[in-house]
Amino acid sequence: MEKILKVDLKNKEIKWQEDFNEFKYYWGRGYIAAVLNHEVNPTCEPLGPYNKLIFARGPLAGTPVPCSGRLSIGGKSPLTGGIKEANAGGTMGHGLGKLGIKAIIIENSFYDNGLYGLYISKDDIHLFEASDLRGLSTSQTVENLQKRFGEKISAAVIGPTGEMGLLAAGIAVTDIDGRPSRFAGRGGLGAVMGAKGLKAIVVDSANTSIPKPANRNEFILQNRKLVAMLKENPLTSKTYTEYGTAAALSVVNALGALPTRNFSLGQFEFAEKINGDALHDAILERGGSGETSHACMAGCTIKCSNVFADKDGKEVVAPLEFETLGLVGSNLLIGSLDEIAVINARLNELGLDTIETGAALGLLMERGIISFGNAEGVRQLLDEVEKGTVLGRVVGSGALVVGRVMGLSRIPVVKGQAMPAYDPRGIKGTGVTYATSPMGADHTAGHTLRAPVNHLEPKGQAKIAETNQINMAGIDSLGMCMMVVPALGGKFDALTGLIDAFYGWQLDSDFIARTGFQVLKLEKQFNEKAGITNIHDRLPEFVYNEPLEPHQSIFDVSDEDIKGIFNYQDE
Amino acid sequence: MEKILKVDLKNKEIKWQEDFNEFKYYWGRGYIAAVLNHEVNPTCEPLGPYNKLIFARGPLAGTPVPCSGRLSIGGKSPLTGGIKEANAGGTMGHGLGKLGIKAIIIENSFYDNGLYGLYISKDDIHLFEASDLRGLSTSQTVENLQKRFGEKISAAVIGPTGEMGLLAAGIAVTDIDGRPSRFAGRGGLGAVMGAKGLKAIVVDSANTSIPKPANRNEFILQNRKLVAMLKENPLTSKTYTEYGTAAALSVVNALGALPTRNFSLGQFEFAEKINGDALHDAILERGGSGETSHACMAGCTIKCSNVFADKDGKEVVAPLEFETLGLVGSNLLIGSLDEIAVINARLNELGLDTIETGAALGLLMERGIISFGNAEGVRQLLDEVEKGTVLGRVVGSGALVVGRVMGLSRIPVVKGQAMPAYDPRGIKGTGVTYATSPMGADHTAGHTLRAPVNHLEPKGQAKIAETNQINMAGIDSLGMCMMVVPALGGKFDALTGLIDAFYGWQLDSDFIARTGFQVLKLEKQFNEKAGITNIHDRLPEFVYNEPLEPHQSIFDVSDEDIKGIFNYQDE
Repeated sequence: MEKILKVDLKNKEIKWQEDFNEFKYYWGRGYIAAVLNHEVNPTCEPLGPYNKLIFARGPLAGTPVPCSGRLSIGGKSPLTGGIKEANAGGTMGHGLGKLGIKAIIIENSFYDNGLYGLYISKDDIHLFEASDLRGLSTSQTVENLQKRFGEKISAAVIGPTGEMGLLAAGIAVTDIDGRPSRFAGRGGLGAVMGAKGLKAIVVDSANTSIPKPANRNEFILQNRKLVAMLKENPLTSKTYTEYGTAAALSVVNALGALPTRNFSLGQFEFAEKINGDALHDAILERGGSGETSHACMAGCTIKCSNVFADKDGKEVVAPLEFETLGLVGSNLLIGSLDEIAVINARLNELGLDTIETGAALGLLMERGIISFGNAEGVRQLLDEVEKGTVLGRVVGSGALVVGRVMGLSRIPVVKGQAMPAYDPRGIKGTGVTYATSPMGADHTAGHTLRAPVNHLEPKGQAKIAETNQINMAGIDSLGMCMMVVPALGGKFDALTGLIDAFYGWQLDSDFIARTGFQVLKLEKQFNEKAGITNIHDRLPEFVYNEPLEPHQSIFDVSDEDIKGIFNYQDE
Repeated sequence: MEKILKVDLKNKEIKWQEDFNEFKYYWGRGYIAAVLNHEVNPTCEPLGPYNKLIFARGPLAGTPVPCSGRLSIGGKSPLTGGIKEANAGGTMGHGLGKLGIKAIIIENSFYDNGLYGLYISKDDIHLFEASDLRGLSTSQTVENLQKRFGEKISAAVIGPTGEMGLLAAGIAVTDIDGRPSRFAGRGGLGAVMGAKGLKAIVVDSANTSIPKPANRNEFILQNRKLVAMLKENPLTSKTYTEYGTAAALSVVNALGALPTRNFSLGQFEFAEKINGDALHDAILERGGSGETSHACMAGCTIKCSNVFADKDGKEVVAPLEFETLGLVGSNLLIGSLDEIAVINARLNELGLDTIETGAALGLLMERGIISFGNAEGVRQLLDEVEKGTVLGRVVGSGALVVGRVMGLSRIPVVKGQAMPAYDPRGIKGTGVTYATSPMGADHTAGHTLRAPVNHLEPKGQAKIAETNQINMAGIDSLGMCMMVVPALGGKFDALTGLIDAFYGWQLDSDFIARTGFQVLKLEKQFNEKAGITNIHDRLPEFVYNEPLEPHQSIFDVSDEDIKGIFNYQDE
């Protein structure tokens, strides 16, 4: 039976809990939805002691199955006021798998204004005093933890912004090289962790072995099948591998959907300076520490990550990804990979979500606090964040708060969360996902970029967004990386086959979509009880009224289409 | 038939509109609720062009009936995201009555980033360029308008914070001496006005006469009756007259419900330095411009307002009221009338709500940005507001935004609006009103201070809060000042008698309570369509859990009691 680790920070009690039988098939995002519905009052204050912070892995974590080690982190979001799950790569998901821990539920808060860490290994689980880590950046924190607990640990940490309780603060998870570079960035979960007084979770899977499948031969066979699928598909074996997520930039720019100048244009004059080709070529040309392709977790064959080095070949940031290129690049009119990389590295050290903060910076530029394109000005603002000044706190408070402080009416958020780098006027299906996802605007909740449709045509987009959201909720509930999806050919047998072989189950072919649907339903239930209903399934007003260059497009998917999806009544 | 003035700022069109027949009995707050439900999309962006700003008077405005000239101002609130009505004394309500204008509906926004004013007199109504008023304080603005349009105008203006679109910005209305001292302060309506590009509305009622009642003799008789009631009641003829609203401070402090040190204590060590007696004595002792009793509008016999002068007898602010003494005084540990008065005057000039900003300053003190009790620090923060720095913008953005920026979990707001100077743990009926009012936390929505009950006993409070809210919604929908209520002896015949005599109607005795109920229903309807439901009928988490000195009281009115009020289903 799977074990749940329950950590009560107020009483400093750690105990094991048997998994509830009805949660048996819920993992990752799904497990978070189940626990929040079961244990957390949806009206609780997100930064108060009654919120819980949950770390949950997938069913195959710890095994050699590629891309199976995503770590879901969730709780009630201080940014959206609703349910939140954000998942990250890195090594902790696999580490928990090897330790046989399905999830960690952090409850209550330290009441002594102290700062603590949680250490988990095979034979020793304890809370430790971490006030010496106060104010440290994410990488400084990890270096300190490595000195204390050894080089091979996995860690999930917050930066100073999480300690400050800022709404754009995420949680950084260490990658295969020990960098705290994989972010559960969205929804302000870093603030939830900080408000609880928890600076870090350390997972040491030393002296454990790879979990044993129920049906070993079948498992090996199924795993080979998945690896073959990933290697055969040009996206998962070539495009993502060579260009990473940055491959999307040229496509989105060509579609006229690349957020540019605070979501006022759909194409960026200097897109070719920051697209996948430019990134790939710069890394290759510079050599040194740079890598065009990098795996964030063991066993990944896609390796969509990268390491970006400066002109001297010295590592600046890893990885540089599409969303950051969009929100910190085109959205701020910063057309330089070097500038974006430096800002990205700073945001990582501070523990801030690049999407949320990029959108927030766009609003500060709109109000003229600094000018568009002023990378030096951005760095100065990030100095303020580091110093913890009121100005710095504003910068880290997310787009909605910044928009309100700036007195602006064009604020690119949905349910309080900033829109990622697909303008919904140019890729309307993704707009439907932004509007209807229980997570707020979120590209990982089911974007539609790769759907073979005219993205400007409003009709039919809702159906695509619905299907993709259901599938993504299913994938996120398996600890699988979304990057595998294109290789699966629209079916999930390869994944259920692996789970069946590992657990000795016999899941039917609808398992993943059905799980996805159930998870979305649980998430919407939580939100409804928190006061977020389908009335909040709306995009910001300006996308309905302000035509976007170059297609003069507005978001015009009908309200009926949007209301028609996730029709639970008909279930 | 009553006339409605409709002003379309985008097209710079002004037109008269006949009142809809079904709105015939809706005035003031009720008229606002009717128009917002009828004309405004509840999901609109509050600072965008689709929101409307409505100025509406009561049925007796312009007549000599005492206290009948309150001006209701409303729209969708950027602070709460729901419906908002805030009403103010001063002379504009009566001015509109004399001009025969029931309401002004401001729609759309200027699209040229300009700043404008609206001038209304008997024979001339026009929009005027007001970019020379940009950045001017409320009193500078009024001085300028008086030079342009004469000393006798009434004006409703915003300060620089309204222009900046800050969430705590209110609208100031001129009093009988031409001071812009009467605030429709709450809900950020100043930001709505500013976002529309409107700096001022000027009403000149020269060359008009007092409106003629349908039944003159009966009207005179009924008016004498009301005047006699006001003169007979000790509250309306003595307590309010001599001590103003500040009379409440000792009572609330004695009950252990005075917000102190950011709502962490219920009694203030130096309460006797800032209570009604202290205020009264200081004004008398100093002489000069000070007045212990002052009428904000013509015909008022209560005269609860005052003029506070400094040690040299020079006017500092008028009036100094209980809510400001609580939020800017005890809540910030500032135990000096002189300090509070100076801050109050600055807030008025900036156009900021003293309640919202007092609560916001308490949170800045909680986080240590300045220390508790540091009045000089507050003045420096207000300098920042004046300069329009990011720090200043934060100070003017209301308690919720400040709380989030400061990373705090104890934020004293309900539906996004700061709690006034009655801690709901000490006066639980008022807590029910905070929780359930469609306006967010609002003492004018139906406080329960004067109910003859044990304010610490949770049972029975919901019923009192329900009755008081219904009555207040009725009173606010008649342009009547809430200060008359104690003199009415629990009945409203005196008011319906006056309306009947004036209009030749025959309203039944339930008219006011029925209207109040209907208005609340309309307001809740708007809110529900805006996504604010009874799930949001909750107080901040800390009042349920954190015992308040000196009674160790928590807010423990049951959810059932709270859900049971305004039971529209049973209607």
